[in-house]
Amino acid sequence: MSLMIVGSVALDSIKSPHGEHKDIVGGSAVHASTAASFYGPVNLVGVVGEDFPKEHIDFLCSRGINTEGLEVACGKTFRWVGYYEHDMNHAYTVATELNVFSDFVPKIPEKYKKSKYVFLGNIQPSLQLDVLNLVKGAKVKALDTMNLWIKTERKALLGVLKKVDILFINDAEIRQLTGEPNLIKAAKKTLNMGSKYIVVKKGEHGALIIGDNLFFACPAFPVDKLSDPTGAGDTFAGGFMGYLSKTDNLSKENLKKAVVVGTVMSSFNVEEFSLNRLKSLTTAEIFERYNNLMGYTSFTEISL
Amino acid sequence: MSLMIVGSVALDSIKSPHGEHKDIVGGSAVHASTAASFYGPVNLVGVVGEDFPKEHIDFLCSRGINTEGLEVACGKTFRWVGYYEHDMNHAYTVATELNVFSDFVPKIPEKYKKSKYVFLGNIQPSLQLDVLNLVKGAKVKALDTMNLWIKTERKALLGVLKKVDILFINDAEIRQLTGEPNLIKAAKKTLNMGSKYIVVKKGEHGALIIGDNLFFACPAFPVDKLSDPTGAGDTFAGGFMGYLSKTDNLSKENLKKAVVVGTVMSSFNVEEFSLNRLKSLTTAEIFERYNNLMGYTSFTEISL
Repeated sequence: MSLMIVGSVALDSIKSPHGEHKDIVGGSAVHASTAASFYGPVNLVGVVGEDFPKEHIDFLCSRGINTEGLEVACGKTFRWVGYYEHDMNHAYTVATELNVFSDFVPKIPEKYKKSKYVFLGNIQPSLQLDVLNLVKGAKVKALDTMNLWIKTERKALLGVLKKVDILFINDAEIRQLTGEPNLIKAAKKTLNMGSKYIVVKKGEHGALIIGDNLFFACPAFPVDKLSDPTGAGDTFAGGFMGYLSKTDNLSKENLKKAVVVGTVMSSFNVEEFSLNRLKSLTTAEIFERYNNLMGYTSFTEISL
Repeated sequence: MSLMIVGSVALDSIKSPHGEHKDIVGGSAVHASTAASFYGPVNLVGVVGEDFPKEHIDFLCSRGINTEGLEVACGKTFRWVGYYEHDMNHAYTVATELNVFSDFVPKIPEKYKKSKYVFLGNIQPSLQLDVLNLVKGAKVKALDTMNLWIKTERKALLGVLKKVDILFINDAEIRQLTGEPNLIKAAKKTLNMGSKYIVVKKGEHGALIIGDNLFFACPAFPVDKLSDPTGAGDTFAGGFMGYLSKTDNLSKENLKKAVVVGTVMSSFNVEEFSLNRLKSLTTAEIFERYNNLMGYTSFTEISL
């Protein structure tokens, strides 16, 4: 099935205990699309400035990512400058330069409008809603959000939540959204806000999916080479949506597999900066890690 | 197989958003023994003061817990006073009154010395070492510890770690012990300190076991009725050790099952204060939750 991904396209400057890199390609749409591209073609929607290096667009194209919806606007590309300390569970922001992203209005090419699967990466809820109104025929609509919108655009966010099937959200955000510290209670409360499924991303603790008589928890794949967690959540969502779109099967069993695929994809993403690990990733490596994770989590009945 | 459990016996006064209870029975040895008693007899070692209500001893006996090793010393029982706020992941201590526990020297009854499984709940590392020297024939020696000993008795703790098979430790403690924020790296570092297996307890995020070509991660059982997390870690360890002792099987598959049993037992413990939930717990309920957790975590292969 066809998958459309809308979100930010960025040039990130990131420092972690494992290195420092300036103006490397990032952004929610880039991380998600690259992960999804392992499972089929992607229709990308985003905006860059005139300074965005052509090599990144060439790379996206080489992965089967359609960049017809990637607008090149007058001005500079969105930039994020941040760093991680020894404990890489927390990202510190030094600067966010919105540049062309500040006036971003997603423009959906005509042929994208038939996309059956839609992932709305983290952009303003009102823009997410505008996009949803253009793809009313989509079979599965999913969105990600962030602490900023929960705080400043709560009403718009709650409005758009009613119109999607799947919400991707991290543990801190779902606590913020609901005011409920217990993640299980928070997820149940959030289900009442509209979407059929909630996927809670918990970083090093893995992910949960809850909804419609489904509860599934997947631990993170054990990674001891953690270089740069930037984009891990988007990579997760991209892998999840890519797999779902590829298989076009919304059974509970298949949604579980999508969570595991997302988990595996994000475990690769964090091993190197930017898209570097995904650039060298093979399908065989995905299978290997998926199957290893099955061994790391499976157990059998007891008799007493 | 016979299981000996050494640790604190306490009267806790606890306030949480779900109630307030004064002088309720607690302590590492009590929580662990009660959980283990679902799987077979337990030899308990601890100390109480003259004020310790006989009804609690009667309860322990009724569960098949041998209290011959429970010394009644002159003075008052160890007391912990604490509370939980809305976010129950953090316990606040108001007061710790060591009382008779301050001079505790575990006295191991002769017949306990043949115990094949030994769990050393959280007491000073030097006392844990003394006990280990009395049960040299034990097949499996396990211990729990805490932030205080990691900070103040590091050398003694490292000494005793070399002599045990299994270390139970929580995520904050293993980071403190190793100075390593990445849990996987921290667990691997800790394996080099001596024990064959490390069980990392992560509260609402579940537990890991690592060691000897084994890696297994079990998410927490989803509990939305969280009344009092006190003793959850000890209940986990008691369930784990009780199951292991009952089955007397140290295969990797069985160690995984022990982690799941511990996870299930602790999920019950947190639902009510003190031992209240375990007092009404049935084997059928344990099986039900164990099997549900299998469903909540299992997934099958993908083909792309």
